[in-house]
Amino acid sequence: MSTDLAPTLDLRALRDRVDAVLAESLRRPPAGIPSPWGHAGELTRALTDFVLAPGKRIRPLLCVLGWHAAGGGDGEETLWRTAASLEVFHAFALIHDDIIDGSCTRRGRPSAHRAFAARRPAGPHADAFGVHAAILLGDLALIWSDALVNTAGLSARQRDAVLPLLDAMRGEVLTGQHMDLMATGRPTDDVDRAMGIARLKTAKYTVERPLHLGAALAGAGEDVLSACSAYALPLGEAFQLRDDLLGVFGDPALTGKPVLDDLRSGKATVLMALAAREATPAQRRTLDALVGREDLGEDDAARVRHILRRTGARHTVERMITQRYRQALRALDDGPLAFPVAAALRQIAAQAVMRGA
Amino acid sequence: MSTDLAPTLDLRALRDRVDAVLAESLRRPPAGIPSPWGHAGELTRALTDFVLAPGKRIRPLLCVLGWHAAGGGDGEETLWRTAASLEVFHAFALIHDDIIDGSCTRRGRPSAHRAFAARRPAGPHADAFGVHAAILLGDLALIWSDALVNTAGLSARQRDAVLPLLDAMRGEVLTGQHMDLMATGRPTDDVDRAMGIARLKTAKYTVERPLHLGAALAGAGEDVLSACSAYALPLGEAFQLRDDLLGVFGDPALTGKPVLDDLRSGKATVLMALAAREATPAQRRTLDALVGREDLGEDDAARVRHILRRTGARHTVERMITQRYRQALRALDDGPLAFPVAAALRQIAAQAVMRGA
Repeated sequence: MSTDLAPTLDLRALRDRVDAVLAESLRRPPAGIPSPWGHAGELTRALTDFVLAPGKRIRPLLCVLGWHAAGGGDGEETLWRTAASLEVFHAFALIHDDIIDGSCTRRGRPSAHRAFAARRPAGPHADAFGVHAAILLGDLALIWSDALVNTAGLSARQRDAVLPLLDAMRGEVLTGQHMDLMATGRPTDDVDRAMGIARLKTAKYTVERPLHLGAALAGAGEDVLSACSAYALPLGEAFQLRDDLLGVFGDPALTGKPVLDDLRSGKATVLMALAAREATPAQRRTLDALVGREDLGEDDAARVRHILRRTGARHTVERMITQRYRQALRALDDGPLAFPVAAALRQIAAQAVMRGA
Repeated sequence: MSTDLAPTLDLRALRDRVDAVLAESLRRPPAGIPSPWGHAGELTRALTDFVLAPGKRIRPLLCVLGWHAAGGGDGEETLWRTAASLEVFHAFALIHDDIIDGSCTRRGRPSAHRAFAARRPAGPHADAFGVHAAILLGDLALIWSDALVNTAGLSARQRDAVLPLLDAMRGEVLTGQHMDLMATGRPTDDVDRAMGIARLKTAKYTVERPLHLGAALAGAGEDVLSACSAYALPLGEAFQLRDDLLGVFGDPALTGKPVLDDLRSGKATVLMALAAREATPAQRRTLDALVGREDLGEDDAARVRHILRRTGARHTVERMITQRYRQALRALDDGPLAFPVAAALRQIAAQAVMRGA
């Protein structure tokens, strides 16, 4: 692998290319789906708007980097379309997740079900309509992402390598969402379960699988796939742990979502499980009384944050992030990945763990 | 095509085989999905139970008949697995549809979201939990049906023929569901729109696409595909029109769903649109006042049924069913399909339009 790759691994340029391919891919809906501009095109239009809104594009980017990690090759068009399909698949996961979490905001705008609800006179009927339309919108995203893969021009060899990975990715994220649903509510001290969810929903889904998919497209061997995992799994855990901190301590102006959501839904995070484990009986009673309450207010949140600090949970999570970040970087130092790829992955790692949004 | 096919086209035997292949296919979940018996296996178990509950299996059956219509061939294993995937896909459509329609019952048992809700102490939290778990259950069905296709052993030629049909089928049913959602509520006299929804949700999705899929697997030419459509589209419309009648006049002990559901949700059926079109102003006011009311009772339903009769709507729909049934049979009489296939399709047509459930 030559360092000639370097100029193509400018992350900003890659992200722009992802955006361009996405816009192009979404111009023509799959068979059976109305054009965004025609009769009955609201759903198509809503999905196009949702996907094309600015985002980090981390999954497509990692897919492209995985491809370079395995030495690239011919068929770049196939790579870009597959990468774009991951972003459309992610829209599915976000749209249904926001319904399930009761999240009203996504990327600083109303979440899909709230945006649909806002088109009807306010009330329980509007709320139900919003959820129902958003269920279909998520379904459309899933179907569309599949149609993109089906029309990406995969060779038979690529199909055999890629489809099992895609099936696994989808199964894992769904299992993570289900574990999340079952665990959400009252705080528990089950750190392992919270970490298990983080592993499925983020470490594997957001980081490892996209890298593997790109690498598999380029015909990667076991060494490259292992090198990707050695970086991806610790980094993905760090990414989710950072998310958990931002969900409680973050600045809503930066994250684009209200900082009370995670506490109100009683999301089963490692942060909360650590606090529950280390809490005094009085602190534990306070957590039990406040976390998971839909009417939790700013004062309540301040009391919970105080406990998250006093139990050392916040500090422990920061330390866990740093450990995992270092572990991911070490995997790159010791691994077989070419310099420009490793450099780009280092950049992504830094952005993932040091972000404010 | 020889009449040697005859013994294999016993519909009951084919249905038993569909059931056996489904049970076999669902034994091993796709990658990333927990085993039904293990930790976190509730969702897997719920889907397996849902799919394996007794059903008409009309889509898999039609897929198998489409394959015979095109002369069959090698690779029966691939055919059966693809056919089974249609039933799992249909579970996705039903589960999400029941949430959207607010249907509490399916096949005489609680619908998926009600079954999940029943596992929690009654109340709004339980209702929301039920919907959220059922969203994920539907997602699982969609993903699983895809994994079945991906592992069905399709040759490259079969993939090229089948995947576009599958993409189209999924797009069409989703578009039908969305049109349904947008049209449901107050009665309108838009017969064309109601018929358009019936065409997408039933004529194409339930009858034409499954036949085409099976035919495409066997390498069908344009003549066989057209012959399938000539039968499928009128029959599928008749099937939906019968469904609409059963939804208002049916016997809940046979249909397995409360006879007030369609009226309470204000489902945009051809039956209702015809009644609204032919209604006197007084009748129209009654329809507007009652149809779409969540608290509609038996007395109200009786008044609506009276109007459906008096306006001639019920009779017109019965006549439309007969016309379309005859048209489907004529297509078989005049078409190129081999005798045993046509005979089986005649049987399915009769069951579809003369059923009580």
